Amino acid sequence: MAETVSFDAAMRRALELAARGPVTGGNPQVGCVLLDDSGAIVAEGWHRGAGTPHAEVDALSHLADAHGLTAVVSLEPCNHTGRTGPCSEALIAAGVARVVYAVSDPGHESAGGAQRLRSAGVEVVPGVLADEVRASLHPWLTAVARRRPWVTVKWASTLDGRAAAADGTSQWITGTAARQRVHEQRAASDAILVGTGTVLADDPSLTARGDGGELLPHQPLPVVVGETAVPADAALRRHPAGLYETGTRDLAAVLAALDARGIRRVYVEGGPTLASAVIAAGFADEYAVYLAPALLGGARLAVGDLGITTIAEARRLAITSIEQLGDDLLVMARPAKGH
Amino acid sequence: MAETVSFDAAMRRALELAARGPVTGGNPQVGCVLLDDSGAIVAEGWHRGAGTPHAEVDALSHLADAHGLTAVVSLEPCNHTGRTGPCSEALIAAGVARVVYAVSDPGHESAGGAQRLRSAGVEVVPGVLADEVRASLHPWLTAVARRRPWVTVKWASTLDGRAAAADGTSQWITGTAARQRVHEQRAASDAILVGTGTVLADDPSLTARGDGGELLPHQPLPVVVGETAVPADAALRRHPAGLYETGTRDLAAVLAALDARGIRRVYVEGGPTLASAVIAAGFADEYAVYLAPALLGGARLAVGDLGITTIAEARRLAITSIEQLGDDLLVMARPAKGH
Repeated sequence: MAETVSFDAAMRRALELAARGPVTGGNPQVGCVLLDDSGAIVAEGWHRGAGTPHAEVDALSHLADAHGLTAVVSLEPCNHTGRTGPCSEALIAAGVARVVYAVSDPGHESAGGAQRLRSAGVEVVPGVLADEVRASLHPWLTAVARRRPWVTVKWASTLDGRAAAADGTSQWITGTAARQRVHEQRAASDAILVGTGTVLADDPSLTARGDGGELLPHQPLPVVVGETAVPADAALRRHPAGLYETGTRDLAAVLAALDARGIRRVYVEGGPTLASAVIAAGFADEYAVYLAPALLGGARLAVGDLGITTIAEARRLAITSIEQLGDDLLVMARPAKGH
Repeated sequence: MAETVSFDAAMRRALELAARGPVTGGNPQVGCVLLDDSGAIVAEGWHRGAGTPHAEVDALSHLADAHGLTAVVSLEPCNHTGRTGPCSEALIAAGVARVVYAVSDPGHESAGGAQRLRSAGVEVVPGVLADEVRASLHPWLTAVARRRPWVTVKWASTLDGRAAAADGTSQWITGTAARQRVHEQRAASDAILVGTGTVLADDPSLTARGDGGELLPHQPLPVVVGETAVPADAALRRHPAGLYETGTRDLAAVLAALDARGIRRVYVEGGPTLASAVIAAGFADEYAVYLAPALLGGARLAVGDLGITTIAEARRLAITSIEQLGDDLLVMARPAKGH
């Protein structure tokens, strides 16, 4: 049932396959298809997460002989021996004649695959569907290039920007659909950042749960930012992914330490002090703002001081999506260009 | 080209005609069609604002003889001599055989038209498309029934609920499309409420202007709430609709005075002190919240204290529409049922 496909169409298929892999776990989502001389897809593969075969190796594993084939892969084949061997060598050893890829590997250790392939006589075609693939890998590419995780700052507030009533009560500002979406966003993160103040005040569990309250397969690592120790009886001490106490409020140091642990996506859940510090320091790559159609007034704001004195210094954002979740809204946004 | 229509279809046409009239000016938007024996529309009319003929009289004016016709009108014909005579008498005098209407007149002086018609032997069919018409006349019906204007509270804030930066600068939080929408909303209001603090701090002109800066045909009356006099050189003193200084902060008294002037729709433009007082007093019938995708932090909030102490007391709203205006959002909302 092989049919002829163009490089673009093959790459689009590779991108579909890539999306089957996890967004968490340190490695990018990558897909690969192998084409024969007629351009027909003869094998497919994708990466299932750190420690498992890369997409190219997964695709090659389905064939006894890949000699003379074209590999179409969404990311430049790695040139690095980590928990698995370098894909460039695997493709050369299999006798692949041509490698088509979308985006260069930004890894500081893993880059150089294209050069290695060329030096072994393999034809290399870079940049196919590059914009599309880059957009889908943007958080991972950014995290690896900057050597710090992609940071999403989340808060839930009323339309007037409050995160709690005067007495501190906040359960619940948003409805069940919005709260379920938070669990999904946690499950798509490697780590959740929370300040010691919130741990002491709210004793949150920070697990990622499904509709029925069951634990989702992937649990993000809870990371407590601050100098105060987490109490021995805190719910966080029973978190299935363990607990990481930073012992410091130095956000750059915290993010560097998380990067060193292979953490690429961080979800900042508050409270307002931590969220404001992350924003003010310029570490917020993305915002997940849950807005409940309600008003509270008062002093308990979702975002505190940002060190901004005049309107020209406002942090301008670009909205990437607006979602209605029950009665609530989820506004996803990123820093506007030039901000 | 007369064609046969049902009462529902005729009422829908009356509703379309009603929308041609102004939403401002004290009187409701009303439309009327006259049907012959076959159910064909033989004349149409609508109300063009206070002091001009009512819809029924406008429709009758197109015919030399309306004897035996059916009048389909979106609001119960009035029974009151104001600047024009009672429509019930005009319909009786014209020899109309039947009057079909949607919604009863809630006016304390003008009600009773249906009864007057019946006593003169005219067949009366009330309640046709009542829900639809009631929804479209909701602000006016509410204002007349309560003897106080329909109050829309508007503010523009960043996603974190700030109306200005720390130094008080706020030009501009939202973009041109959002600001143009504010002018349209002003033009659809009878009066604009503003606090003395905002007048002194910002010297706003509060005119309703078009895209090119030109004055729109309808200008709302600026109403300054507070005890401090408006300065002699304030921009508001040059407002084309005049200026009303309340000399008091007593909101119930202000709204009663506006009702007595025939003002049905009030647009509260702030600042935060006035907006918060209106909300806290329970006078906010509708919210127009302009949200800019930006963050400011700091202490200058769009909404101040509302006297709410715990989450159960939150003012819950129901969103009626969300509009994207350039980069900004306009969230329209009303108090949720039971709140």
